[in-house]
Amino acid sequence: MADSMKGLKRTHYCGDVTEIGKEVVVGGFVERVRDKGGVIFIVLRDRTGVVQLLFNETTDKAIFEKASSCRSEDVLMVKGEVRERESKNDKLKTGHVEIFVTDLRVLSKAETPPFEITAETKVNEELRLKYRYLDLRREPLQRNIIMRHEIAKVTREYFYENGFLEIETPMMMKSTPEGARDYLIPSRVHPGKFYALPQSPQIYKQLLMIAGYDRYIQLARCFRDEDLRADRQPEFTQIDLEMSFVDAEDIQECVEGFIQRVFKEVMGVDVPTPLPRLTFADAMNRYGSDKPDTRFGFEIQDITDTVKDIDFVVFKSAIEDGSSVRAINVKNGAAAYTRKEIDKLVDHAKGIGAKGLAYIRWADEPNCSFKKFLADGDLEKICSAVDAQQGDLVLICADKTKTVLSTLGAIRLICAKKLDVIPEDQYNFLWITEMPFFEYDEDNNTWVAAHHPFTMPMEECLDYLDSDPANVRAKAWDLVLNGTELSSGSMRITDFELQQKMFEALGMTDEEIQAKFGFLVDAYRYAAPPHGGMGIGLDRLAMIMCKADSLRDVTAFPKVQNASEIMSECPSTVDKDSLDILGIAVTAKEEE
Amino acid sequence: MADSMKGLKRTHYCGDVTEIGKEVVVGGFVERVRDKGGVIFIVLRDRTGVVQLLFNETTDKAIFEKASSCRSEDVLMVKGEVRERESKNDKLKTGHVEIFVTDLRVLSKAETPPFEITAETKVNEELRLKYRYLDLRREPLQRNIIMRHEIAKVTREYFYENGFLEIETPMMMKSTPEGARDYLIPSRVHPGKFYALPQSPQIYKQLLMIAGYDRYIQLARCFRDEDLRADRQPEFTQIDLEMSFVDAEDIQECVEGFIQRVFKEVMGVDVPTPLPRLTFADAMNRYGSDKPDTRFGFEIQDITDTVKDIDFVVFKSAIEDGSSVRAINVKNGAAAYTRKEIDKLVDHAKGIGAKGLAYIRWADEPNCSFKKFLADGDLEKICSAVDAQQGDLVLICADKTKTVLSTLGAIRLICAKKLDVIPEDQYNFLWITEMPFFEYDEDNNTWVAAHHPFTMPMEECLDYLDSDPANVRAKAWDLVLNGTELSSGSMRITDFELQQKMFEALGMTDEEIQAKFGFLVDAYRYAAPPHGGMGIGLDRLAMIMCKADSLRDVTAFPKVQNASEIMSECPSTVDKDSLDILGIAVTAKEEE
Repeated sequence: MADSMKGLKRTHYCGDVTEIGKEVVVGGFVERVRDKGGVIFIVLRDRTGVVQLLFNETTDKAIFEKASSCRSEDVLMVKGEVRERESKNDKLKTGHVEIFVTDLRVLSKAETPPFEITAETKVNEELRLKYRYLDLRREPLQRNIIMRHEIAKVTREYFYENGFLEIETPMMMKSTPEGARDYLIPSRVHPGKFYALPQSPQIYKQLLMIAGYDRYIQLARCFRDEDLRADRQPEFTQIDLEMSFVDAEDIQECVEGFIQRVFKEVMGVDVPTPLPRLTFADAMNRYGSDKPDTRFGFEIQDITDTVKDIDFVVFKSAIEDGSSVRAINVKNGAAAYTRKEIDKLVDHAKGIGAKGLAYIRWADEPNCSFKKFLADGDLEKICSAVDAQQGDLVLICADKTKTVLSTLGAIRLICAKKLDVIPEDQYNFLWITEMPFFEYDEDNNTWVAAHHPFTMPMEECLDYLDSDPANVRAKAWDLVLNGTELSSGSMRITDFELQQKMFEALGMTDEEIQAKFGFLVDAYRYAAPPHGGMGIGLDRLAMIMCKADSLRDVTAFPKVQNASEIMSECPSTVDKDSLDILGIAVTAKEEE
Repeated sequence: MADSMKGLKRTHYCGDVTEIGKEVVVGGFVERVRDKGGVIFIVLRDRTGVVQLLFNETTDKAIFEKASSCRSEDVLMVKGEVRERESKNDKLKTGHVEIFVTDLRVLSKAETPPFEITAETKVNEELRLKYRYLDLRREPLQRNIIMRHEIAKVTREYFYENGFLEIETPMMMKSTPEGARDYLIPSRVHPGKFYALPQSPQIYKQLLMIAGYDRYIQLARCFRDEDLRADRQPEFTQIDLEMSFVDAEDIQECVEGFIQRVFKEVMGVDVPTPLPRLTFADAMNRYGSDKPDTRFGFEIQDITDTVKDIDFVVFKSAIEDGSSVRAINVKNGAAAYTRKEIDKLVDHAKGIGAKGLAYIRWADEPNCSFKKFLADGDLEKICSAVDAQQGDLVLICADKTKTVLSTLGAIRLICAKKLDVIPEDQYNFLWITEMPFFEYDEDNNTWVAAHHPFTMPMEECLDYLDSDPANVRAKAWDLVLNGTELSSGSMRITDFELQQKMFEALGMTDEEIQAKFGFLVDAYRYAAPPHGGMGIGLDRLAMIMCKADSLRDVTAFPKVQNASEIMSECPSTVDKDSLDILGIAVTAKEEE
């Protein structure tokens, strides 16, 4: 059996041992052992850092012997005297001291781990996920998890100080699929019926506003049964908030204060407010994206007018079609983009749906892909329109405007990454406002809601809800950070009749409405203050703040792309009895 | 359409309007309207309280008219001047003022609610739950929900200050049923496999200790698919914590600090620490309960020795049987307990499994149910043994000791309630320590774990794990408040071999162990610090602190006894397509 810690009580965390002459008791994991014959050094680690333990010829013999048997990852508790170290390490807070050990307890012996617990690791992620509890011992993950805790802590402090109440909403709720698939939970007591895990607490937070709770916040677990992309998790956490007696700007102002606070407190980074605002239309026109990364230029410019007289069929036909010709100027891009590299860009553009890209590559002199169609002065006119100089690369797309924008938006990002012009330590927040209310569903040839069905249209659009859906804008907005959508928000419809009208515009039948949202629709009959809110992705925020590469690096026990947890082999089969009790049976052919 | 709040911005909450002469903007729900012809008073309510609005002959005529159309629960926003009120209400913080309204917006009109929104209500709970969003407007519920928020806030503050990290653990985990039934979630990606909702984050928090996170806290949602008793919810929240490099006392000390802090900060109540401690054995012997309410006496006393010579067959045979005779002295109980009332107690005792109750009712003079068996002086001896005086009622039970204790424990509570001797504003916390390690499963004639299988036995009991299971005590403890179990805690086994031995003692096969806990058992191979923790029921704590009658009164959107949510009619049926995608089918006959 291992030693007990009886009689010892920890006085310090490892990373806090600095005071020479003090008697301390510390506990932790063995980071490494250096046995130099007459002297043994053990580096002991806990979540605060490391401290060096010293055993030498003056150490009690039994202790020395025990020390010599210690191996990496053993758990120790030691008592000892803090002494000045001979060879100091200025990089460590505890680098000037070591502990001369007078009592050593080996509380737990470790078998050799399947991989070394080091900050940097080349071990493949699958193995690390299988032994997640060991992976979580690594310093970068500990730092991330601690930082995520700090972010959540500051989040709560900020919103609580601003009058928000944290109210827990149910995890087992009614299935009202929208957007994504619900995870379902069969009911034992009500055979044939199911609960659903919340995709968000949307309905409940609106009910809380109807109930007069005025300002609500919750760090809420949300669930979506989607086919996972690299940066999704089936369960994730949302900083979910809702406010009454406010309009869009009030909510945005409140969230700006939060962003400022959390970046300052957790990272020491100043975020100036108010944050810049761009309408959805402007974002699309300038960046070809509803979540533009504004840390670099290469903005999209409309050169339709400039090129309208050039006798180049690609431009001509696009313009005649009512489409447009637009360009980005990849500043200093000429060197990096050889002919071959440009071909790759063109392939990429074709992959997005564009017919191709025209270009002007200005290394020594402007080299234009459509030179033979140019009249005197045309080249200069185009270069002048997009402010191109020697060293630049101008990429031009002529097509349906929607295609042009999405193509150049994507190409813009690729070029910026290749030229490495995106400053890493810059945090460009941006509000995208006046989001479109409807999206066109090409498959079904119909307009569908771009947001949940309680989203308020902008007042001035109420008159053409039916007649011109493409131009109806919503009182909805996104918060974007460095090209990532962090958060969505909107004002909600509180008017019972307008809500009915919206449901109709979305083609929902009375039965559908009643079955899905009946109780919520009814709730609005009893009056509600104007209200709106947002949901801010905590995982994504933490990922960006931790400079992590994936959500898995800021989630203690993440799932992988196929929604399984490798460590516990979850999901797993359950015995037939359990299913019988639930009144369900498996019909699908099982995996294995 | 309703008015808009354009141009107005709330300056004050209703309950904060006190400064005479100030121009304020408030918003809220109409509590009531008093129309006195030339003068209209509207009481406006938000979550902070109420304030009176005044409309009189000097009010703008259009505003006055609009005011006269206002009805209960309409949502208003008003601008106005704070004036001194003529007839003051000293009970209200805002009772000295009223707002002379200069701008009135009716933001939302309310239909007549299905019940009146009043603090006191006699409306049946089912109707209130159907319209939960209206029920939640009532002041007592708002107070509870706000207090629950405060409790959670102080909880986090306390534990964060003490070095705890809040780490989110998965909600979709592997099914490892123990104690209660799991709620299951079919996996779409892995047909035939299931996730489970956590009954607690037990496994994950132990893994976090193995991973070196040292101190973990989480306000964690937990789920149990049990047949609900009045005071259970299928989902509930646990203040879940785990600490490394500690022993039981360290954890208890930490939690005592928390209790002291939360009662002081939220209620202004001083809880002296250290909290009293009772071993499980002592609690059973003195109170006949492992969660004794110590706010009153009536303690159980062993009078076996005192009555051993009395020639009363009930006592005699019990004593010969190795059983015992025990009594409680219901102080001043004689008056309340007539013969008929005592008969009811006896019936109750029989319901618990006792053969009956003997008694001495000492109104004017001692009236003993077994008088005819008494020799001279016997009565005095018994009365003296239990300190009975005139006015008291002594209840005696002779039976198997286990039955005697549970019977008198239950009767003790009934009598205290009837005599109304339980002080309402007293908070008697109590640690129950040295819990039994095994429980005897009468149905299967076998010893089963009383706690989860990672619970540490007390060191001194290791030697007779197999030979004397009845006497093995666990390093496990409960926190009891006024007769309610608030929390359970234990130290965990960190020794791989001891853990194997425990599994064997519990009759688990290697396959079972591997299937259920394989990864956790393996994790301990790589060393773990000594650790233990607790789970404190937040809902129950909030219920007691709010002096609420049920968990439903401290839960925003509770479920009822059959695990359904009345408001949303959840759980509900889902379409067959959804089930097909999940690869399951309903086999049970549906309810309706």
